[in-house]
Amino acid sequence: MTPHNPDLVHLLRGPALESFHRGALAIVDAGGAVWRSSGDIDRPVFPRSANKVLQALPLVASGAAEAFGLSDAELALACASHSGEPAHVATAAGVLAKAGLGAQALECGTHWPRDEAVLKALARSGHEASALHNNCSGKHAGFVCVGCLMARAAGREPGEFTRGYLRPDHPVMREVTAAVAATTGCDLARAPMGTDGCGIPTFGVPLRALALAFARVASGQGLSAGHARAALRLRQAVAASPFHVAGTGRFDTRVMQRLGERVFCKVGAEGVYCAALPEAGLGVAIKLDDGNTARAAEVVMAAVIARLVRLDDAERGFVQGLADVPQRNWAGTEVGRLQASPALQAALA
Amino acid sequence: MTPHNPDLVHLLRGPALESFHRGALAIVDAGGAVWRSSGDIDRPVFPRSANKVLQALPLVASGAAEAFGLSDAELALACASHSGEPAHVATAAGVLAKAGLGAQALECGTHWPRDEAVLKALARSGHEASALHNNCSGKHAGFVCVGCLMARAAGREPGEFTRGYLRPDHPVMREVTAAVAATTGCDLARAPMGTDGCGIPTFGVPLRALALAFARVASGQGLSAGHARAALRLRQAVAASPFHVAGTGRFDTRVMQRLGERVFCKVGAEGVYCAALPEAGLGVAIKLDDGNTARAAEVVMAAVIARLVRLDDAERGFVQGLADVPQRNWAGTEVGRLQASPALQAALA
Repeated sequence: MTPHNPDLVHLLRGPALESFHRGALAIVDAGGAVWRSSGDIDRPVFPRSANKVLQALPLVASGAAEAFGLSDAELALACASHSGEPAHVATAAGVLAKAGLGAQALECGTHWPRDEAVLKALARSGHEASALHNNCSGKHAGFVCVGCLMARAAGREPGEFTRGYLRPDHPVMREVTAAVAATTGCDLARAPMGTDGCGIPTFGVPLRALALAFARVASGQGLSAGHARAALRLRQAVAASPFHVAGTGRFDTRVMQRLGERVFCKVGAEGVYCAALPEAGLGVAIKLDDGNTARAAEVVMAAVIARLVRLDDAERGFVQGLADVPQRNWAGTEVGRLQASPALQAALA
Repeated sequence: MTPHNPDLVHLLRGPALESFHRGALAIVDAGGAVWRSSGDIDRPVFPRSANKVLQALPLVASGAAEAFGLSDAELALACASHSGEPAHVATAAGVLAKAGLGAQALECGTHWPRDEAVLKALARSGHEASALHNNCSGKHAGFVCVGCLMARAAGREPGEFTRGYLRPDHPVMREVTAAVAATTGCDLARAPMGTDGCGIPTFGVPLRALALAFARVASGQGLSAGHARAALRLRQAVAASPFHVAGTGRFDTRVMQRLGERVFCKVGAEGVYCAALPEAGLGVAIKLDDGNTARAAEVVMAAVIARLVRLDDAERGFVQGLADVPQRNWAGTEVGRLQASPALQAALA
């Protein structure tokens, strides 16, 4: 039930190993061949927010993105776990406005921004968080757009096709689930089903299949024509507007601001990380056993990017700095390092 | 280098195991006999803030607490990783004032409160965080009091014995380190040394030795008369003022508000947790491999308390609710459970 996965990330304090993170890693091509793997890549894992780009495919493939004239920033937000900064909130509201709706159409629930600086700024402004601040608000605004287009096609009121869109059997969610099934090649009717943080269903799929989906997103191979076109459009939108997929200082934003279309990477909760690497034609899926995303999964992803993406010397220094990170205490003193483990380095050699 | 410790805590989402936490656990009596253990209890771990009560022993044993007339709340704060709530900040300032000093005597650095509600309240107030908000400010105020008493005894200015108190070779820090060495029975000159988040040295000691120190704190056995008296005084102070050792809604505060002197438990960074259980005469030390304190180590500690502390039915329900915790998403829907694993339950049987 609990795999004995290798230690992928080490936290050193002074001379000693203080903590370490075990996990699994799959790097797969669009034919399903495993280029490298580490740990158990057949155990089902919930992709969480790492698969938002798969869930956003219907937004483009259905024609909704075109019908409502969504911009790069708005499409990037549909794939985002954003920080709830003012520009994210405004962009989410803008998507809904294009569909003729307001924030009350969102069913994702409300949470305050998790980034300390963003949270402080919002608190100081005297405002409260709304559903627009939810890190998933862009994805949900995209779902609402799909429902609005369905309503338009059926000659019905938008609400008839947007209300309750979280439900597994809602027409919008059926499209979203079908996109995840098609890209991963998994029969989701037989997969473990849970409820995600934002209320939609999430399905447990093997890391191997999740990596395959991202290899398909990277290359278009193995996708329907509509999904292949949508995947390319979404990758280009995120590369053009990487701020909107995460936020100030965040890993995904920093990496894609620097490396553009060479990497599409996306964080998920509970230590999941996925990437599409178009030049190599590979997909990457990572899951840390302990669910640590912010420090552990990022280091693994940085080590993968350093190994697999064409980089100049400055870019290599930048990426390696994300795979071997000085740790400082409150007074600013360096007290340790967070780094890719020897086992991870060996797996990528 | 990386032990294969058992999975102690499981996070379930819907029907599936989403994430899990491995770690080690030592439960030891004051003679050093291991009552129960799980995983590698001989690997050195940095106790981090979990050993603050050991580091506070000189504050009482030196006579400084008495000389400056410290209250229960002030002594509890000296053992605390507090939330930086207004009452914590005021109490830390009060300790320094009794020693005739101000916040500038603290060398722990500044950080904003980590609790979302506390952080929001501070941001809305328009104020900035200071060193008094640092979760370690009470411990450091205690160090400063020890230095002030040393200065008084030597007929010198306080600053001569307080400035630079973080340094391993400072007279105050030598007393603090000696207390950790005496209670754990470890030769710290041969232990791995790192720098803690608050700037003071931290020494890697086996979980077995850390649990022994807490068994000694629980019973007084194996301690010098001064340390035994100090340990009792500090346990009583925390039991009388559990808000000051952590804060609103925090595990340590809630547990000790409910169970009083039957438990002294203390959280540390990087998945470390310690407890003294006076009625059983046992000490407990926990380290999660992945450093996850907030969710994983708390569940382990709750399971230990449920097994080892005399509880009535209502108290048992309260503690078991901390060892099997419903997980809700942003909309408030229960999406999973965080719970003691079968391996942990078997280890405690």
